[in-house]
Amino acid sequence: MSHFSLTNNEDTIIAIATPPGKGAIGIIRVSGKNAISIVSSVFHGKDLSTVPSHTIHLGTIRDEEKIVDEVLVTVFKSPHSYTSEDVIEISCHGSGFILSQVMQLLLSKGARLAKAGEFTLRAFLNGKLDLAQAEAVADIVASDNENARQVAINQMRGGFSTEIKTMREKLVEYASLLELELDFSEEDVEFASRNKLKDLIGEIKSMVDKLIESFMVGNVIKNGVPTVIAGKPNSGKSTLMNALLNEEKAIVSEEEGTTRDFIEDEIHIDGITYRFIDTAGIREARDKIEQMGIERTRKKMKEASVIIYMFDLKNETMESIGHQVEELDQLGIPYIKTGNKTDKASPALLKILEPRKDFILISALKKNNLEGLKKHLKEILDIGRITIGDTVVTNARHYESLYHARQSLGDIMSGMEKNATGDLLAEDVRQTIYYLGEITGEITNDDLLASIFSKFCIGK
Amino acid sequence: MSHFSLTNNEDTIIAIATPPGKGAIGIIRVSGKNAISIVSSVFHGKDLSTVPSHTIHLGTIRDEEKIVDEVLVTVFKSPHSYTSEDVIEISCHGSGFILSQVMQLLLSKGARLAKAGEFTLRAFLNGKLDLAQAEAVADIVASDNENARQVAINQMRGGFSTEIKTMREKLVEYASLLELELDFSEEDVEFASRNKLKDLIGEIKSMVDKLIESFMVGNVIKNGVPTVIAGKPNSGKSTLMNALLNEEKAIVSEEEGTTRDFIEDEIHIDGITYRFIDTAGIREARDKIEQMGIERTRKKMKEASVIIYMFDLKNETMESIGHQVEELDQLGIPYIKTGNKTDKASPALLKILEPRKDFILISALKKNNLEGLKKHLKEILDIGRITIGDTVVTNARHYESLYHARQSLGDIMSGMEKNATGDLLAEDVRQTIYYLGEITGEITNDDLLASIFSKFCIGK
Repeated sequence: MSHFSLTNNEDTIIAIATPPGKGAIGIIRVSGKNAISIVSSVFHGKDLSTVPSHTIHLGTIRDEEKIVDEVLVTVFKSPHSYTSEDVIEISCHGSGFILSQVMQLLLSKGARLAKAGEFTLRAFLNGKLDLAQAEAVADIVASDNENARQVAINQMRGGFSTEIKTMREKLVEYASLLELELDFSEEDVEFASRNKLKDLIGEIKSMVDKLIESFMVGNVIKNGVPTVIAGKPNSGKSTLMNALLNEEKAIVSEEEGTTRDFIEDEIHIDGITYRFIDTAGIREARDKIEQMGIERTRKKMKEASVIIYMFDLKNETMESIGHQVEELDQLGIPYIKTGNKTDKASPALLKILEPRKDFILISALKKNNLEGLKKHLKEILDIGRITIGDTVVTNARHYESLYHARQSLGDIMSGMEKNATGDLLAEDVRQTIYYLGEITGEITNDDLLASIFSKFCIGK
Repeated sequence: MSHFSLTNNEDTIIAIATPPGKGAIGIIRVSGKNAISIVSSVFHGKDLSTVPSHTIHLGTIRDEEKIVDEVLVTVFKSPHSYTSEDVIEISCHGSGFILSQVMQLLLSKGARLAKAGEFTLRAFLNGKLDLAQAEAVADIVASDNENARQVAINQMRGGFSTEIKTMREKLVEYASLLELELDFSEEDVEFASRNKLKDLIGEIKSMVDKLIESFMVGNVIKNGVPTVIAGKPNSGKSTLMNALLNEEKAIVSEEEGTTRDFIEDEIHIDGITYRFIDTAGIREARDKIEQMGIERTRKKMKEASVIIYMFDLKNETMESIGHQVEELDQLGIPYIKTGNKTDKASPALLKILEPRKDFILISALKKNNLEGLKKHLKEILDIGRITIGDTVVTNARHYESLYHARQSLGDIMSGMEKNATGDLLAEDVRQTIYYLGEITGEITNDDLLASIFSKFCIGK
């Protein structure tokens, strides 16, 4: 049996919706058929069953005669609430002890603890959000940079859902004509125009292609760009990393309250997070140059989405550079040719490299032209073109469904080219409808829902 | 200049009111004359200036055209709010990043960051709470056990404030009669009946005495009972402590979410926290018995409010016990004579001790009669008599003012006995009025307020 039985909707669920720890306010969220009666049984103040929706009331939570806390209670009446059920939010004093006392009391009155994401699950089941929108809610809570927040908010507010739903509906409409045609197959009529289908499939495919393409960017926004700084020993890898990170740290210390985990391994440039792979290795390398095998570096480079490859201009020649470039090209990963130690390079070498747009010349030690490097980093990934209005896919599940949809769309297209029969086309159209429906949740099942919502925090 | 300039009330203040960290909901609190106009300038939804008080509205927070978050906004209109000013609470998605973005936006529109406790300070300055009630708000947030919570809630809801205010008003009334009398002093009239004063002072003094007496208990509730387990080496101190703590830990692990700091050094019995002093010393002792000097133990015992003194019944005689009891009596601190290792004691010794009510016989190892020990622990401190309805002083500042008030009351009493002149009496009455007024905040100054509210958390 599934973790999330849909019939559980009968229960009234409760959860602490604020982060753990002491604060001015702690909030308990209650949702379900009995939300109002359960809260009313412990709340002393106005009669919550008669107050209008979207109003807030001062009173006390009591255990028999004992006052547990003085609270503010907000009432949202069905269907005008987050879950579409009756919802009450109890704003308590922000003591973990008090919150747990109030929770205990509500449990004793018949509520049960909400599972992770169960409020949003109910919002989905009750048609308040589609599945892609619901998933965006978790992304919003998790967002820790500007682009991730914007993409998640766009997604929650509709995002590509609307587009996908519209396309899917058109396809459903077409499919029904196609089915009709099959019923009359002996009469050789064509209810469902093949030309219309071709246009429709073309339209859908270009949308799906665009979304699939956006996933690389979306993934970068959500998870950061895996980045490797590589190069021969003593080419300045460690110096460059420190220069990039120190600049970042200066920014961080200026903005009070923006502490970040693992700051040592990430830098943020224009809302994009670059996640450095094997920085420990680079740091270590300073002392253990000899131990760093070529194999290890190669392996790390293959995990990267982009490589900053450092040339030590003091010691390289055009010939030695050429050899390394040849090797890099074989990796098939975008890389930046970074000429370091410009201050110590031979004038002859500089004269050759300076006009070449594919070489970024810096001095990591003197922090010369780090801006140029950063600019190139953004350009090479083609992240610069993201704008707020764009619909970006950040969710691996959506990507997978889109990928499958694209395959079905390809099948339809090649089927039409070969003048396939109506029933073969109908099969592929149904497949496409299925995969598009998976994204927005028209097609779903308990296991899928359980796996999606179990990643949410409790209280959301 | 004071940290809290009272004229700062002109500003509109903002703070994140929920604990830091990820959660379903994060709340930003806004209070001040421009709360509605500042929030309206970034909120897209209903016109907040026209909505009724105590209503909640869905909308978006926008930075120009960019949507920062989808939020619920609660409007409390002056004077029907916590601070008595216009107050808005913005319920955002619980991402620290989003909260800081919304904060930045509000700051750019003219709000300023609230100082610690500034919302409650405003509630006090605007007459919503008296000072003792305001102080209780911080105690509620900090409360981590049942009694502390109850006492703080009682206090916030009025507690002894009402009693003190009533007494103080009577005294003010009497003082004005006394002043009047002084104006007519040549005519030798007595407007202010000395008998009435005697009764009034008696009444106030018994209230003040009761409150001062409650402070010992109040302090225990708030800060825990400093407890020492003492006894000769190998008497079972460490075993007892582990037995008490393990039981406690079992309880804690049953109640999910009730994690406590320093659990190793505290046990909670019936809502009272016992704070063990020098538990490290006791633990250490197991291996370093010889190193534990008598001096160190004595010093620790003097810091305790109660001592659990362990006798090793396997090795003690009535005579050796007698010697130790004599020494303990000299300390002047309540202690529990705890006979340990009952399973290995001589039957003769047990026969003497069993009928004696001042000996608690246990086996720490076998966990025999730990309940009896706990019961006695509570009785010996006379904490058992606290009931919910009682007014208990937990605040050292209140204690100090009460202490001074009692001195002035004593001066009045001895003055009346010596038939002191009206102007001498008037001076002492004024002193008493002053000290009582300090508690509830009729008498105050910026430095005092700054020192009180700076201990609050920000957002409260």
